[in-house]
Amino acid sequence: MRASFGEQFKLTIFGESHGASIGMVVDGIPAGTPIDEAAIALDMARRAPGRDPTATARKEADRVRIVSGLFEGRATGAPLCGLIENTNTRSGDYAQLRERMRPGHADYAGRVKYGGFNDPRGGGHFSGRITAPLVFAGAIARQLLRARGIEIGAHIAAIGGVGDAAFDPIAVDERTLAALRATRFPLLDPAKETPMREAVERARLAGDSVGGVIECAAVGVPAGIGSPFFGSVESVTSALLFSVPAVKAVSFGDGMEIASLRGSEANDAMRMRDGRPACLTNHNGGVTGGITNGMPIVLRAAVKPTPSIAKEQLTVNPATGEDVTLCVTGRHDPCIVPRAVVVVESALALALCELVMDDAATRALKAPSGGL
Amino acid sequence: MRASFGEQFKLTIFGESHGASIGMVVDGIPAGTPIDEAAIALDMARRAPGRDPTATARKEADRVRIVSGLFEGRATGAPLCGLIENTNTRSGDYAQLRERMRPGHADYAGRVKYGGFNDPRGGGHFSGRITAPLVFAGAIARQLLRARGIEIGAHIAAIGGVGDAAFDPIAVDERTLAALRATRFPLLDPAKETPMREAVERARLAGDSVGGVIECAAVGVPAGIGSPFFGSVESVTSALLFSVPAVKAVSFGDGMEIASLRGSEANDAMRMRDGRPACLTNHNGGVTGGITNGMPIVLRAAVKPTPSIAKEQLTVNPATGEDVTLCVTGRHDPCIVPRAVVVVESALALALCELVMDDAATRALKAPSGGL
Amino acid sequence: MRASFGEQFKLTIFGESHGASIGMVVDGIPAGTPIDEAAIALDMARRAPGRDPTATARKEADRVRIVSGLFEGRATGAPLCGLIENTNTRSGDYAQLRERMRPGHADYAGRVKYGGFNDPRGGGHFSGRITAPLVFAGAIARQLLRARGIEIGAHIAAIGGVGDAAFDPIAVDERTLAALRATRFPLLDPAKETPMREAVERARLAGDSVGGVIECAAVGVPAGIGSPFFGSVESVTSALLFSVPAVKAVSFGDGMEIASLRGSEANDAMRMRDGRPACLTNHNGGVTGGITNGMPIVLRAAVKPTPSIAKEQLTVNPATGEDVTLCVTGRHDPCIVPRAVVVVESALALALCELVMDDAATRALKAPSGGL
Amino acid sequence: MRASFGEQFKLTIFGESHGASIGMVVDGIPAGTPIDEAAIALDMARRAPGRDPTATARKEADRVRIVSGLFEGRATGAPLCGLIENTNTRSGDYAQLRERMRPGHADYAGRVKYGGFNDPRGGGHFSGRITAPLVFAGAIARQLLRARGIEIGAHIAAIGGVGDAAFDPIAVDERTLAALRATRFPLLDPAKETPMREAVERARLAGDSVGGVIECAAVGVPAGIGSPFFGSVESVTSALLFSVPAVKAVSFGDGMEIASLRGSEANDAMRMRDGRPACLTNHNGGVTGGITNGMPIVLRAAVKPTPSIAKEQLTVNPATGEDVTLCVTGRHDPCIVPRAVVVVESALALALCELVMDDAATRALKAPSGGL
Repeated sequence: MRASFGEQFKLTIFGESHGASIGMVVDGIPAGTPIDEAAIALDMARRAPGRDPTATARKEADRVRIVSGLFEGRATGAPLCGLIENTNTRSGDYAQLRERMRPGHADYAGRVKYGGFNDPRGGGHFSGRITAPLVFAGAIARQLLRARGIEIGAHIAAIGGVGDAAFDPIAVDERTLAALRATRFPLLDPAKETPMREAVERARLAGDSVGGVIECAAVGVPAGIGSPFFGSVESVTSALLFSVPAVKAVSFGDGMEIASLRGSEANDAMRMRDGRPACLTNHNGGVTGGITNGMPIVLRAAVKPTPSIAKEQLTVNPATGEDVTLCVTGRHDPCIVPRAVVVVESALALALCELVMDDAATRALKAPSGGL
Repeated sequence: MRASFGEQFKLTIFGESHGASIGMVVDGIPAGTPIDEAAIALDMARRAPGRDPTATARKEADRVRIVSGLFEGRATGAPLCGLIENTNTRSGDYAQLRERMRPGHADYAGRVKYGGFNDPRGGGHFSGRITAPLVFAGAIARQLLRARGIEIGAHIAAIGGVGDAAFDPIAVDERTLAALRATRFPLLDPAKETPMREAVERARLAGDSVGGVIECAAVGVPAGIGSPFFGSVESVTSALLFSVPAVKAVSFGDGMEIASLRGSEANDAMRMRDGRPACLTNHNGGVTGGITNGMPIVLRAAVKPTPSIAKEQLTVNPATGEDVTLCVTGRHDPCIVPRAVVVVESALALALCELVMDDAATRALKAPSGGL
Repeated sequence: MRASFGEQFKLTIFGESHGASIGMVVDGIPAGTPIDEAAIALDMARRAPGRDPTATARKEADRVRIVSGLFEGRATGAPLCGLIENTNTRSGDYAQLRERMRPGHADYAGRVKYGGFNDPRGGGHFSGRITAPLVFAGAIARQLLRARGIEIGAHIAAIGGVGDAAFDPIAVDERTLAALRATRFPLLDPAKETPMREAVERARLAGDSVGGVIECAAVGVPAGIGSPFFGSVESVTSALLFSVPAVKAVSFGDGMEIASLRGSEANDAMRMRDGRPACLTNHNGGVTGGITNGMPIVLRAAVKPTPSIAKEQLTVNPATGEDVTLCVTGRHDPCIVPRAVVVVESALALALCELVMDDAATRALKAPSGGL
Repeated sequence: MRASFGEQFKLTIFGESHGASIGMVVDGIPAGTPIDEAAIALDMARRAPGRDPTATARKEADRVRIVSGLFEGRATGAPLCGLIENTNTRSGDYAQLRERMRPGHADYAGRVKYGGFNDPRGGGHFSGRITAPLVFAGAIARQLLRARGIEIGAHIAAIGGVGDAAFDPIAVDERTLAALRATRFPLLDPAKETPMREAVERARLAGDSVGGVIECAAVGVPAGIGSPFFGSVESVTSALLFSVPAVKAVSFGDGMEIASLRGSEANDAMRMRDGRPACLTNHNGGVTGGITNGMPIVLRAAVKPTPSIAKEQLTVNPATGEDVTLCVTGRHDPCIVPRAVVVVESALALALCELVMDDAATRALKAPSGGL
């Protein structure tokens, strides 16, 4: 926990928004894996700021420099470290960041935890910028999963109260996911782009921000991955999703709505399909008893509205104990949801790598005569 | 992961529904802690079956026998192991459990994972019965937290589509939580008990089941607990909550609804209160940047309807590859939500112990001259 | 750490010498593994007291009762918990154990750590008795390794200054190890049994005790297991060996003596043998760079003389701050080395299971086209 | 395990000898800790090559660039990442490294593990160079421990069969350790420097190398740190020491020699000293039952002779399956023992940070009324 995730596919992240570099170390990439740096760059670009009017105008190249674990284009099996330099860091006068706690941000909680010594510039280690290393690691995870027929994709399920259509939890396929990944504003129903963008623009003009929901799916996941209880697919995946700043809710399958169904409605009946057991519905989002059941994994994550807004807000100066007001200035995203799509995908990719590797570990010592 | 949770407050659970015993080992209880076995028994009774018409008529004493880590009423500092014997185990003919996968259950996913060798009787290790060790460990965690002024309680937020009132996320206090813990059907609005029970009874008569939502709060949690990213309060807590079979959604504060708010609505403005910074609202559920901010922690967990229903269901026989039908017979809860209330509380208690201990570890080597 | 070992093959131990039960939970046994309880009982008997004049006359059946994770003779894949009841516990007046710290024991260190709340009876959780769960888990590990052609055995390399012959680090084979495992006083040179036993007897008559050295080997271990640095074969194995109370030194291959060799003497030259690279010598004990190289793993562990002796010793009463003297009475082993042989073997078996499983995890996501 | 160590003071290392950078991430440094970069540089210099005739003439600045976790000279509480650029990397023709396995090196074991994809240049991730990050992290750990009165130092106990005096395990103090740290060839008996250097020089002229032993001590460690079994001081420390390439034996206190003593000789009698219990001897090296007892921690590590030697050696070409010969050319240390002194100190410093933090975690939830 804290800065590292995973026992098998171990990810360690580091960095502060306005420090020298942010980055990550990934331990567990099989030696010999071809690392497709162009594919990584594509995922990094999907998260990078400055590419869409919903996002901050601040530009960061977010180019990853791999300094270890790679030789002649392939993973060496040793830990792979990637660095992203912070090139565009106008620190300015951060003294006021210590004097006026930004509501909705980690400012006050972080100040208490770190006794005021955390790097205050640009949110420091709390910055959404630290999701860039997550996307980098996720891009590698995705390559590993792809070689096993597993594909992950996501769309904007809602922004500012405007909803998209939902995945067909039975029929969602690789092609749909690939098409979503190819666009910067991924929607199942393209007609929703205009009202969503309008909601963002209205908020921006009001010096405000909006949140949204991201729906993510993985297809091609074989049945039998994950564990009951602490190693459940939902536990491992949600721990990663809730690591993403701004995520406040995570659900699988029908999610909160399943609470209103009856058992006869929520249970996914089964039939043989192409010689294999399959579910006729997918209310459970591909996971039962914490373990994949061969259906698409479908999940949702709620992203709260960007807390940095231009409107005047009430807050405190913890050093002096005074009530103060605050107007956050500078470049901020009126809506981070489009940039967060690839972050959610990455979290799921990392979780699945961990779980597939864990599954392999538990099978390693299986007696040759074992099996039903 | 898998059977163990936590790095500081380490919990290992074991057992199958119809095996000899279920139980747990807890490592990290401070030596000298008085263990209040009566208080543990009370929590165990809140989860135990056979006490309420919403639950199965099957009775299990669920008495915990502590076999290590306890001496003269106090924790010894060595790992504490508690065992619960499975006394009421009518195994019957479980052959059919291998032939007809119960929809909504782990039967098929578990069969693939374990190659058919998992104990099929009563769901084996997948049984909701394995939450009893979680409640036992949670009861100890609760005692440790109580000594620091932290109290946890929960209520049934919804059953079968009938909703209770919600916690006042600012004003919820120890007294409210204690009152909820003292009742078997905890509600903020007692008028909702009758319609909720009627919804359960209607489902039961139809051979069906209903789900629900549990809202849980912790008060008295100091600011500064938790970490950004992988050790966030939400990550650690959700990993535990999603370990509970049947939980399909977890949210903090406003949860999914926060996605529809604007930043100016979702941000919790701050003012000095009694000499300390406090939030005027609590849309973030007491956690910002993954770290507690001193406000009550408020979360919700959706519990799916019990998958074991009497109605005929379509399913498969994976051994023969045939489509079959299934009517689950025997004693089952038409609604597990009331019994799951203490399980959700326990998950939060375990998460907070882990996080408070982690916080202490990171402060251990603080230089005496440190601090702002 | 603390009460649990391993990330893949997770072992949690618990219990105090004179508590109700001691035991362990093993998580990671592949579902379907046949559990040979008779073979486990054999290993338990090798460690059990009361069977040899070098050991305490106290008898403990040390029968393991498996309460979870086993169904119809095979592992279910869920955590396996085994319990050993403490049947022969004459607690007597343990008050004096709190008043007179036994030199060489954990009494004083443990008192400080646990604030005096640890169970003092028979050493509590510090008792050598807690190695019984280690042997139980090791016996299962051994069965898993055997199915892959890996065998482990050990002999008494020295007792009370009398040395046995050493393993031939090239030629040691399964047959040699099996023969050693079949005897209660395993030696390569049977002529050493009499002088060793005489050394023990002389110490016993003098109210004293002797220590010794155990040499252990694993054969059939394929090359390529283990990792550089923190996951080295030596790191994982030594962490387990130093968990065994009384072990004060651990070495691999030539051990301390390698420090006196030149590189040209210590390097193990290689030649092709039966179409495979093999070493002509084995100064490195089968491990180079932390990874197995296909040669037998050979290690040594030094076991200090039993600290419980009848002779009068100087010590303190920490409660009163007085200097006092102490004569430890009761039944004690004048030499625990013969009983510790199977404990050392078990530690190596557990380490190898962990490492083989870790290796499988890192290969799990290997691209099909990978490989040289 | 693998690339990360520790649950509380988490160290992740990465890098290959001839890659772009090597480095590490440390998670768990208390926010506000002043980081003394000059002191770190001193420790780095003690390990760096090119400073002494016993070492390789290859020069590496080994300057660490901290890219995160540091702000205005103090730790921020976020993970601290330090990078060391590889500036002096003559890769040359490394093709032959794949064709001729160097005896005593990880070449063959690593090739099997990584399928030949590991970076072969300069030993890649197996290089002794990767101990530089360990020394960097150790230097920070040392600063944290120093603020609590704990000091660590070591000396060359033997080189090429020439032995130094041993620490007085009772009287070794901070001043002795500081004096040793201040010299590049630390000895208790300075008269041994000439014969040791001569042994190295003779080996060098013969195209050969020598090994040695390092003795390390920590003073000021309070009693009560560490845990029985898997978290024992010896387990945690040995796991780190055996992570250091070339270490083949680790012992505490009297080590292997304790096996020849009687209990009455090996037990450390106790008396009150300055109002506190103290041992009159220190055969146990400051650790009993896995827990510190307040005496100096004293340990030894055997370092094998550098395997890279100029002499012709027999080996194999695994790609062709042919027997070949090999003369390792290039710059190599005829003896790495002097450079390894600070590495051994660092391992002990890291272990103690981990254990002190773990101890704090277990005390965090102690009830105020607890205690004897």
